[in-house]
Amino acid sequence: MATIVVPSDLRDEVWRANRRLADAGLVTLSFGNASGVDRATGVLLIKPSGVPYDELTPGMLVAVALHDGRLVAGDMRPSSDLPTHLALYQRYPGIGGIVHTHSTEATAWAQAGRPIPAFGTTHADHFRGAVPVSRRLTTDEIDGQYELETGHVIIETLEAEDLDPLSMPAVLVASHGPFTWGPDATAAVDNAIALEAVAAMAFRTVTLDPDARPIADALLERHHRRKHGRGAYYGQGRR
Amino acid sequence: MATIVVPSDLRDEVWRANRRLADAGLVTLSFGNASGVDRATGVLLIKPSGVPYDELTPGMLVAVALHDGRLVAGDMRPSSDLPTHLALYQRYPGIGGIVHTHSTEATAWAQAGRPIPAFGTTHADHFRGAVPVSRRLTTDEIDGQYELETGHVIIETLEAEDLDPLSMPAVLVASHGPFTWGPDATAAVDNAIALEAVAAMAFRTVTLDPDARPIADALLERHHRRKHGRGAYYGQGRR
Amino acid sequence: MATIVVPSDLRDEVWRANRRLADAGLVTLSFGNASGVDRATGVLLIKPSGVPYDELTPGMLVAVALHDGRLVAGDMRPSSDLPTHLALYQRYPGIGGIVHTHSTEATAWAQAGRPIPAFGTTHADHFRGAVPVSRRLTTDEIDGQYELETGHVIIETLEAEDLDPLSMPAVLVASHGPFTWGPDATAAVDNAIALEAVAAMAFRTVTLDPDARPIADALLERHHRRKHGRGAYYGQGRR
Amino acid sequence: MATIVVPSDLRDEVWRANRRLADAGLVTLSFGNASGVDRATGVLLIKPSGVPYDELTPGMLVAVALHDGRLVAGDMRPSSDLPTHLALYQRYPGIGGIVHTHSTEATAWAQAGRPIPAFGTTHADHFRGAVPVSRRLTTDEIDGQYELETGHVIIETLEAEDLDPLSMPAVLVASHGPFTWGPDATAAVDNAIALEAVAAMAFRTVTLDPDARPIADALLERHHRRKHGRGAYYGQGRR
Repeated sequence: MATIVVPSDLRDEVWRANRRLADAGLVTLSFGNASGVDRATGVLLIKPSGVPYDELTPGMLVAVALHDGRLVAGDMRPSSDLPTHLALYQRYPGIGGIVHTHSTEATAWAQAGRPIPAFGTTHADHFRGAVPVSRRLTTDEIDGQYELETGHVIIETLEAEDLDPLSMPAVLVASHGPFTWGPDATAAVDNAIALEAVAAMAFRTVTLDPDARPIADALLERHHRRKHGRGAYYGQGRR
Repeated sequence: MATIVVPSDLRDEVWRANRRLADAGLVTLSFGNASGVDRATGVLLIKPSGVPYDELTPGMLVAVALHDGRLVAGDMRPSSDLPTHLALYQRYPGIGGIVHTHSTEATAWAQAGRPIPAFGTTHADHFRGAVPVSRRLTTDEIDGQYELETGHVIIETLEAEDLDPLSMPAVLVASHGPFTWGPDATAAVDNAIALEAVAAMAFRTVTLDPDARPIADALLERHHRRKHGRGAYYGQGRR
Repeated sequence: MATIVVPSDLRDEVWRANRRLADAGLVTLSFGNASGVDRATGVLLIKPSGVPYDELTPGMLVAVALHDGRLVAGDMRPSSDLPTHLALYQRYPGIGGIVHTHSTEATAWAQAGRPIPAFGTTHADHFRGAVPVSRRLTTDEIDGQYELETGHVIIETLEAEDLDPLSMPAVLVASHGPFTWGPDATAAVDNAIALEAVAAMAFRTVTLDPDARPIADALLERHHRRKHGRGAYYGQGRR
Repeated sequence: MATIVVPSDLRDEVWRANRRLADAGLVTLSFGNASGVDRATGVLLIKPSGVPYDELTPGMLVAVALHDGRLVAGDMRPSSDLPTHLALYQRYPGIGGIVHTHSTEATAWAQAGRPIPAFGTTHADHFRGAVPVSRRLTTDEIDGQYELETGHVIIETLEAEDLDPLSMPAVLVASHGPFTWGPDATAAVDNAIALEAVAAMAFRTVTLDPDARPIADALLERHHRRKHGRGAYYGQGRR
């Protein structure tokens, strides 16, 4: 079988993505992880398991094959959440980066089993509707291939509401925490940061008014389209 | 048509204003923007769209003409919120700087559709009464010139309560977030920082006592006058 | 009249006290102030009015005479809260430093008009019982010598409950915020930091249990005596 | 009696553990303390009493004999909480490090007298079930050997629920705050950081849903076993 070469810019991007999780206060101790893939070479790079973020170097990232998870490069064990990442990459070809955190505000909604309502434009800029929460895993799923089943329940959650993963780049896994993704690892981190921000705002919003109304559909669409798709006019048009 | 020269001290002030938003934790990713104007030359300087704050240099700021928004200098696209800024500058000659953020605590009140009550002297030092929240935009307004209509609804909100924009330098736009302003960009940022602080205090105040009483009118006036107008005796008299 | 010399170690301590307020996140913009006195020379040093903390130098501190507030040294205007400080120093000879902030958590209790209950040992280590909140000032007091009346209402609050200012080194002024003090400016800042911490804990405690019970009297006394008075056995005995 | 030599790596680890408490924002002023023991030499190293964390040097740590608390090395007074630490080390041979803080979120639960429910996997990764809260100490216990009785009530709390201290490395002491521990001082700090994180998440969870359900038993066990015991597959297998 031919050797898979890990693109050096992917290694750099995934390393930066992991470091940004720590800098943004989304991860504590060694919780969480970021990964990225190069579809051309079929390689996935992910954080090694249990390594504190301030000790992480680009060379520690673990490379596996995207189609079967076989180790390609690296001396360390990959994140134990690798099967979750693989399931999502394999199901959704448009995804190039995935992030998992236990960030405080988003995890609270996951623990309460409540979707995060789309209360404002900050939310609409990143997520086209309420951020869904998965069902709880069954005992069989937990006792079986737990991390793979976590990937399956994320996919099930998106499909149950017919959601496009690039318009809804986040799911809260019940009793666990958020997974986010995007076209690349940088975008996945952006979405993890945005999710934590909207979770914090939504917590205060429902405390101030338990019956707060979601954003109007027209405004949700307007803000989402400002940033995404053909009519986007936010930013410098570099993406 | 004569060339408009952008005053270099304005460029410096607006750049610093944008950086202070990030340093104060009021903005995340590339959310938000600060602008400033020079009334003598009729120029408005604003943050370019979608640029992260730590990459922003003074030279990236975009200059437009105050009377019609025409590009005067700069290689980048201006913030998509430019029409909101223009509407406010054109309506209120006393305003020299405007800030827009999605800061967590103030945005929560905007999302809940509740004005922020004037509960204490911190509030009174900056805002002469409850900080108002706009009505929601109509679908026609959202689907039309959305950013311009956002400016119009801010003006409508101030005028409905007969508020002087220099005594009430903030409006919460419903389902969106706060806009603040002041005589210059520095003051606009000060007001954005103060607004976030009073929003955080007010959230805790209404949680501790849902029927908390606003500050007495006499105290509101006293604190406002300590800092503003002819009888001001706070500070070193430099402004 | 003889010249009053400002002790240089007092200048250094008061400057450090003001800087610590900013470093501890208790003050925003130019809110708040710290002062200290030297009883031997009868001098009071206080922050100048309206100066941002990161621009403050020791030489900017304003020196006034403790018995009448007359300017002794300094080129700047003293904090507008000077009359509050003077009233407290003149009434309580044991006080050597005073701090005023608008710190978020403590101010929320002041705005809600609720004393902060003594829920735990963190509280007891610094404050011998619930931290009291003053009555609201009358319109006459507000329209008259407002800052002096603020000092009077703090004293009235302590005396109404027969509190020793060194056992209860904090009062919340209603609709305003906390004042703290201590034997010197360093201790006054310590108490301001401790007050913000216990206010944050108490907010969460009453949210978790609206009927939470205060600490047992015996434990309140035990912890207070661990740190204060003849039987103190906390620390290195340096004070 | 033979001289006890303090292992230099223990001194370094305990010093780092104390500094990490400050860096992680778990301690304010001189609150809190970390200790560690070397079972072979029978020595316990602990923070000196009342020393601010940024002034702490490795040489200031106080060494005492593990079996009787007699001073072995050091010029300073040990933390006043030393008897609590001694009681736990003597009762549980598997413990190598202990941490005490007054961290805001965990202390709020201790003050409310509520155990922290196991709402999610972050919790399960560190604590095998709800983190228990002790009963209140009696007046006799408070007036007697208070710090020793604090150790006894922690042990009583663990034993009442038949908890293994290495599976439940934390107890909230009512009206006081959290104690955490682990195989060494580093692990004890990790658990203090994790406890503060889960306390913050749980506060938001019960605010969002007062009837939120704890994590399923199977998931609690799965996550705990991912990190602990023979079947552990999280991390690099270095521990």
